[in-house]
Amino acid sequence: MSIDVLQERIRKLKSPIMVGLDPYLPILPRHIVRDAFDEYGQTLRGAAEAYYRFCTELLDRLSPIVPAVKLQSACFEALGADGINQMQRISKYAKELGYYVLMDSMRGDVGSVAEIYAQAVFGSVSVGETAYQLYDCDGLTVNGYLGSDGIKPFLPYCKHDGKNVFILLKTSNKSSREVQDLLSGDRVVYTAMADLAMRWGSDLFGKNGYSEIGAVVGATFPQTMKLLREKYDRLFFVVPGYGAQGGTAKNVQFAFDRFGHGAIVSASRSIICAWQKDGGDGENYLDCAEEAALKMKADIGKYVVIL
Amino acid sequence: MSIDVLQERIRKLKSPIMVGLDPYLPILPRHIVRDAFDEYGQTLRGAAEAYYRFCTELLDRLSPIVPAVKLQSACFEALGADGINQMQRISKYAKELGYYVLMDSMRGDVGSVAEIYAQAVFGSVSVGETAYQLYDCDGLTVNGYLGSDGIKPFLPYCKHDGKNVFILLKTSNKSSREVQDLLSGDRVVYTAMADLAMRWGSDLFGKNGYSEIGAVVGATFPQTMKLLREKYDRLFFVVPGYGAQGGTAKNVQFAFDRFGHGAIVSASRSIICAWQKDGGDGENYLDCAEEAALKMKADIGKYVVIL
Repeated sequence: MSIDVLQERIRKLKSPIMVGLDPYLPILPRHIVRDAFDEYGQTLRGAAEAYYRFCTELLDRLSPIVPAVKLQSACFEALGADGINQMQRISKYAKELGYYVLMDSMRGDVGSVAEIYAQAVFGSVSVGETAYQLYDCDGLTVNGYLGSDGIKPFLPYCKHDGKNVFILLKTSNKSSREVQDLLSGDRVVYTAMADLAMRWGSDLFGKNGYSEIGAVVGATFPQTMKLLREKYDRLFFVVPGYGAQGGTAKNVQFAFDRFGHGAIVSASRSIICAWQKDGGDGENYLDCAEEAALKMKADIGKYVVIL
Repeated sequence: MSIDVLQERIRKLKSPIMVGLDPYLPILPRHIVRDAFDEYGQTLRGAAEAYYRFCTELLDRLSPIVPAVKLQSACFEALGADGINQMQRISKYAKELGYYVLMDSMRGDVGSVAEIYAQAVFGSVSVGETAYQLYDCDGLTVNGYLGSDGIKPFLPYCKHDGKNVFILLKTSNKSSREVQDLLSGDRVVYTAMADLAMRWGSDLFGKNGYSEIGAVVGATFPQTMKLLREKYDRLFFVVPGYGAQGGTAKNVQFAFDRFGHGAIVSASRSIICAWQKDGGDGENYLDCAEEAALKMKADIGKYVVIL
């Protein structure tokens, strides 16, 4: 895909929503865990199979409403090889349903390591004469603390293969100010990072005007968001922190341009764990997730009209 | 382990060297790849088995000289589940040989995700009534761009289980200045990060005076290293960038305190790929790696005496 395709999918569904899949056994409905344990035992395989069912059932249900999905790689890595296996399967499944797939690994490596990682995430891994496509993601979150050296290996994929990198600017957590808000001359660290993101994407603008190199900007700091949107009008924003972390529809409106473009709001627990508010044991988790996604769409729709 | 145990191992071997294992098919000796492909085919499994043999043979050979090892997780993730499987096996193998094992994943997540990841890397993952120990590392590199929220989940393991976190301060790559050297008041971003590292480890000092929360400081900026060593005399430094990246023994001397303590120098390609300089096809890669490690030890020994 590319930033144009992502924007087009958002426009088509009139829904600037990205669902974050960060599975963890305690948040899974009981029947899913029970069935997986019955079949595979109380094993890492069993847990990973439960993740797969949970995530793919959610993907099936939400595909008419939600254009993009975010896979939290740490959650899958926490189950070792079984988790990684299922993350790959879930990524492929999401792609087949038409989702834009963002892998949220928030890493920052340099040089040869970043090259190896970029190839695995966006391209294919060569073993002898065979090329294996492993993760097949459309986008990746990257920590830019290491500077250009950490980003350059990803740029060819953004230029030629319609892939996107989203640089962490201002994250949604409270302590993000400790480093990201440090004042440096007439900038703060997160605007310095935004300047770099603009530079990295300076020859990678899509036809909608946005760069293939986007940014992550938390929903929890609306004034910062407003400032960033005004100044960096060609950076597409992924906006985490909606819902469980306290970001509201009123807050996230500032992430969008006057056409309602240029941003997608990510929510995870407020949708995938919506069943927990219901008091039951999660038999109805798909209904709860769908209802939460529709409510989120409607809430944002009060403030943002997508032309 | 803990920062005391790491220091003690370095002192015992009189060798402040950490070998970085970042395998990649093109850098493996031909006979290892050939044997693995013969047995497992040109598959991801085959590649991962080749990594395992390469890394464990190196670990066997180097254990009398080298006290610590760094596993570059991105390289293993690039082979998917097979890579992760072997990374776990290699980590366990290294621990059995007495190595201090640092997992180099350079991530920065927050909240529940960081908790899940910390548990998997340092603790054990619970599936039903079974606890699985997956990665079993002693230390982890962490990107502190997200501030305290990203570090706090790791601290209990540092306090109670002798684990260490190493915060990226100033990395060895050239473009590290773009973000890390930004001036903010009387600090730069990397000293602000060092102040945070000190705060995070303020109740976690080992008996040698160093904090369980250490730092990553590249070998390629000797003046910066000197300044950091003087100002942050309780932060243990992992020093990458020696050898292939251009850091010299003369440079890295500034990482150590007057007892020759407080730092370990990491080298990867200059040791594990030493055979490539030989012009052969790598049959003798263990001899080359051993020779390179001994030379590195001797070189650093010219400038640093470990008391």
